Amino acid sequence: MSIERSIAIFSPGLLGGSLVKTIQQRIPGMEIRVWARREDAVQEVRRELPAVIASTDVAETIRGVSLAVLCMPIQHMPDIARQIASCELADDLIVTDVGSVKGSVVAALEPIFAGTNAAFLGSHPMAGSQRTGLAHASGDLFHRAACLLTPTASTQREHLDRLRAFWIKLGCRVREMSPQEHDHCVARISHLPHSMAVLTTLAALSEDAGVLDSSAGGFRDTTRVAGGDPAMWAGILMQNRTEVMAALQDASAVMRELLEMLQSMDEEALRRFLTQAKALRDLLPAV
Amino acid sequence: MSIERSIAIFSPGLLGGSLVKTIQQRIPGMEIRVWARREDAVQEVRRELPAVIASTDVAETIRGVSLAVLCMPIQHMPDIARQIASCELADDLIVTDVGSVKGSVVAALEPIFAGTNAAFLGSHPMAGSQRTGLAHASGDLFHRAACLLTPTASTQREHLDRLRAFWIKLGCRVREMSPQEHDHCVARISHLPHSMAVLTTLAALSEDAGVLDSSAGGFRDTTRVAGGDPAMWAGILMQNRTEVMAALQDASAVMRELLEMLQSMDEEALRRFLTQAKALRDLLPAV
Repeated sequence: MSIERSIAIFSPGLLGGSLVKTIQQRIPGMEIRVWARREDAVQEVRRELPAVIASTDVAETIRGVSLAVLCMPIQHMPDIARQIASCELADDLIVTDVGSVKGSVVAALEPIFAGTNAAFLGSHPMAGSQRTGLAHASGDLFHRAACLLTPTASTQREHLDRLRAFWIKLGCRVREMSPQEHDHCVARISHLPHSMAVLTTLAALSEDAGVLDSSAGGFRDTTRVAGGDPAMWAGILMQNRTEVMAALQDASAVMRELLEMLQSMDEEALRRFLTQAKALRDLLPAV
Repeated sequence: MSIERSIAIFSPGLLGGSLVKTIQQRIPGMEIRVWARREDAVQEVRRELPAVIASTDVAETIRGVSLAVLCMPIQHMPDIARQIASCELADDLIVTDVGSVKGSVVAALEPIFAGTNAAFLGSHPMAGSQRTGLAHASGDLFHRAACLLTPTASTQREHLDRLRAFWIKLGCRVREMSPQEHDHCVARISHLPHSMAVLTTLAALSEDAGVLDSSAGGFRDTTRVAGGDPAMWAGILMQNRTEVMAALQDASAVMRELLEMLQSMDEEALRRFLTQAKALRDLLPAV
């Protein structure tokens, strides 16, 4: 498996910064470049991530690298992808991303690179935090995380193999699925929990946030991700809206079942319902 | 403030066992007795909690103690309370509990002790775990936890003061409220999050639990409490059903708002919605 000789990371937030730190730990000697939109972000990268080449210049950042990773919010990816596609690119360049939605992202980005030397192939490392920004970046973020690769009919086997090798090197468990399978799966395992954490927070606290004074670990954990970045998550939920709405409709149907059991005081049915949920939740191995 | 001279703990599960360990750390020298229904549970207590007097005999356990704490599931409390009330009791005995519902528990237990030397006063330490049983008991469980005391018009000031002093000694932040205020507050901050974790688990995994292979910290935390004991939680949700149903109806209304924003592709409204949730969630201090 060829090892990437150099990497260009576009946008140094939590994920971009964590990528840099992880590569520095696990692939020492690999050349790392970071592009940021604003000059002050470039200065922050130079301060926080020594040994990285940082610039606001897309052409300079992409020149000669074998791998580029787009780490900005998904709604900004097509614009940067077009800028990259207009530059001089290495023959073996793979462009990937770390976006949480794949159907819309792959449909937008794959054609942009179709007429170039480079190829686009989507990645989604299942790693993140309610905290954002380079200041929270960590070299452990990808450790044992699932990374979902979303090849299409146009994807070359060699590119898929190289990208898989890269993420494995960073400590990920790599899975392959179509962009559509990805969006269905991630709606259930990530976008639904995020939405439910938001709904729980609003229903619990909107009337009187004073109840927080009595809160314990259950509220803290169940709602943690509701502290995530609103602009980023508005983009994610909207771009995956069909699958997210289907998952929320399912949750709504299950909520009606629960309300009926409470209404009819059917404690036996409620116990079976909670037992079914526990059996499913217990499938998740303890950390 | 008078210090309790001795304590009787009824049922040595996660909470009862953690009470023993915390008292041993923080009130050394206090006599501790533990009652368990079954002889094998008594043997386990003798093995796991040395220096504790364990018995299946209610009269022997309660004789002469100044404080009794009921730690069994709430639906079993009235039966044990009646057994205790029929025994010879110390003049200064306070009986309390650690149940998650207070309206129904206080209404059932306060009258049982009205004709005795003893007085009942409800407690609810906001501490627990999805794990149950003595094996998971911990001397840290109550550290900085809120403990909600629920006096009524019949409660004597001296009893309230003594019980408050006891929980503070164990490391709790004590709050007082009526049983009705308690049930409203706890429905929002504990029973709603628990229900939403259950709904999220069922909606995410019922169709295909294989999506768990792609899960990350968001799913893990949002659904953690769904691994809790089904029989215990069926009792809690059912006994607090009016308040739980009201909280679920609110969550259902907020879910309809979210679905409408997704349906109409109103990303700006979605961002405001997520911003409002984040602002509320950020009120919770970081641990």
